Amino acid sequence: MLVAPEAPPRRVHITEVGLRDGLQNEPVVLATEQKLALARALIAAGVREFEVTSFVSPRAVPALSDAAELVAALRDTPGLHLSALVPNLRGAERALEAGVDSVVLFVSASESHNAKNVNRSVEASLAGFEQVARRLEGSGVALRGAIATAFGCPFEGNVPVQAVEDIARRFAGLGATHLSLGDTTGMATPPLVTERVRHLHQAAPELALTLHFHNTRGIGLANVMQGLALGVDRYESSIGGLGGCPFAPGASGNIASEDLAYLLGEMGIDTGLELERLIDASRLASELMGRSLPAQVSRAGPRLALSDGDSVPTAEGRGT
Amino acid sequence: MLVAPEAPPRRVHITEVGLRDGLQNEPVVLATEQKLALARALIAAGVREFEVTSFVSPRAVPALSDAAELVAALRDTPGLHLSALVPNLRGAERALEAGVDSVVLFVSASESHNAKNVNRSVEASLAGFEQVARRLEGSGVALRGAIATAFGCPFEGNVPVQAVEDIARRFAGLGATHLSLGDTTGMATPPLVTERVRHLHQAAPELALTLHFHNTRGIGLANVMQGLALGVDRYESSIGGLGGCPFAPGASGNIASEDLAYLLGEMGIDTGLELERLIDASRLASELMGRSLPAQVSRAGPRLALSDGDSVPTAEGRGT
Repeated sequence: MLVAPEAPPRRVHITEVGLRDGLQNEPVVLATEQKLALARALIAAGVREFEVTSFVSPRAVPALSDAAELVAALRDTPGLHLSALVPNLRGAERALEAGVDSVVLFVSASESHNAKNVNRSVEASLAGFEQVARRLEGSGVALRGAIATAFGCPFEGNVPVQAVEDIARRFAGLGATHLSLGDTTGMATPPLVTERVRHLHQAAPELALTLHFHNTRGIGLANVMQGLALGVDRYESSIGGLGGCPFAPGASGNIASEDLAYLLGEMGIDTGLELERLIDASRLASELMGRSLPAQVSRAGPRLALSDGDSVPTAEGRGT
Repeated sequence: MLVAPEAPPRRVHITEVGLRDGLQNEPVVLATEQKLALARALIAAGVREFEVTSFVSPRAVPALSDAAELVAALRDTPGLHLSALVPNLRGAERALEAGVDSVVLFVSASESHNAKNVNRSVEASLAGFEQVARRLEGSGVALRGAIATAFGCPFEGNVPVQAVEDIARRFAGLGATHLSLGDTTGMATPPLVTERVRHLHQAAPELALTLHFHNTRGIGLANVMQGLALGVDRYESSIGGLGGCPFAPGASGNIASEDLAYLLGEMGIDTGLELERLIDASRLASELMGRSLPAQVSRAGPRLALSDGDSVPTAEGRGT
């Protein structure tokens, strides 16, 4: 599965997770109409794959309590793939009723994070997934898996690759088509990316592997570079870098969709996304949230957005 | 010169440019004692190579008008390599008198940036460097070259690799030992890094190549990953990501030293730097500047700084 860095994938699929992972950690709760305005701006930029919400308890995550309405409203737009996270059978029933294209079952690779997140053991989560898999049979809705804390846990520290591999095999056994490795609190590093991707290519080659990095420690796109060198062609990101890290106030959350699209575009990799329109969507997200977002390319503009020279401060002898 | 990404350099030299490139674009001007406090914090973190100031016109860059005092004060600390930018013979005389270890001559690869920066043509800059090179002969002070806008120009757009190569040959002819490629306004991309590094390895193999990236568009460390894959073992960064981009208000400047050191450390590459102490230095820099700085790892803490769980918001069902 390895490719030389000279030959990265020609086409990369980016799933926009801003409406889900981005919004769930923000103090501001958007109205459904505002989320739809943001979704429409993203669609105008070429986004076709959305992880659009979670069908979790509205009490636990009030920001996503409009999950069904949001999916229903976006169903009018043709050509989209809408996925949603579900923790259990009840969530899956709601997701099916709302009309998602795929259901994402999630579990943490570390016990303490899974306990904090869904209040049960990893094994209890996995056992519950079997009901969901059976329910999806013949429904035409695909099953995807997501593993949180796949590169490290904020409570336990390092997470053995074996824990990730074991869960991946279980997802494969349930008939999942895709597997996302979640870098929940930004603990992924290039060597961990290499180790985990290789193990999963061996252990569960039937799963389309997606890397979901956070930029909590500034190296999210360095990890993407490593993923590309390993041939991985699916990534998840959020517009503007929306979101944050509940364990580190002020720290960044997901890698920013426009920074990722900029990097890939400059590498000659097709993403189907239009950078200028993504920047428009990012500015809308920033307006809606009432704060500046961590994405960089939206502040500086595209690479060849030339300065007219008039806006340049006296810069004699500033050097490099 | 190419190495596989599995075999990056084992040791990387990081030159701290925060006191020079970092401070020259900040609205706050630090007193010499404050700069020394920051330098001491960086030395405690293991920093030994500083691009410490520029011997340019104090009228043009008031923030660096204490160049001579700063170098003199740091000369008391053994084991440091202190370099300083100089635009011409007059600057070189001042640098020699102050006691630098190496003098960095700088010129832009694009005419319009060189005109804005030092008010002369590229050829006029290069011609002037010959005097400096002669003056340095036998002085024991090394000559280094730096090329601004080496990956693109905010006024002209793309910069031909030939322009960079031509200047590199001139620096080699002047007896320079090192060459830094400056990504002045954050226009470097992985393919441009590959192209430029390969050309320079061919055209001027005697020059130790240094990559000086800005994170203006969020891909600074992705460019470092590409540099590592090409075997480049010298990088320049600024603590906290101090500095900015004079052409894009709000945009980031240099890549942050602690984010770079974190990435390299996690890749098993020796930098001689201690991350926790770098974070201390970054916090001091933030205090001195009176603002939060763009570096990420200083906000989130090192990778294995575990959460005690008590500071965690209710997070049921947040997923990945």
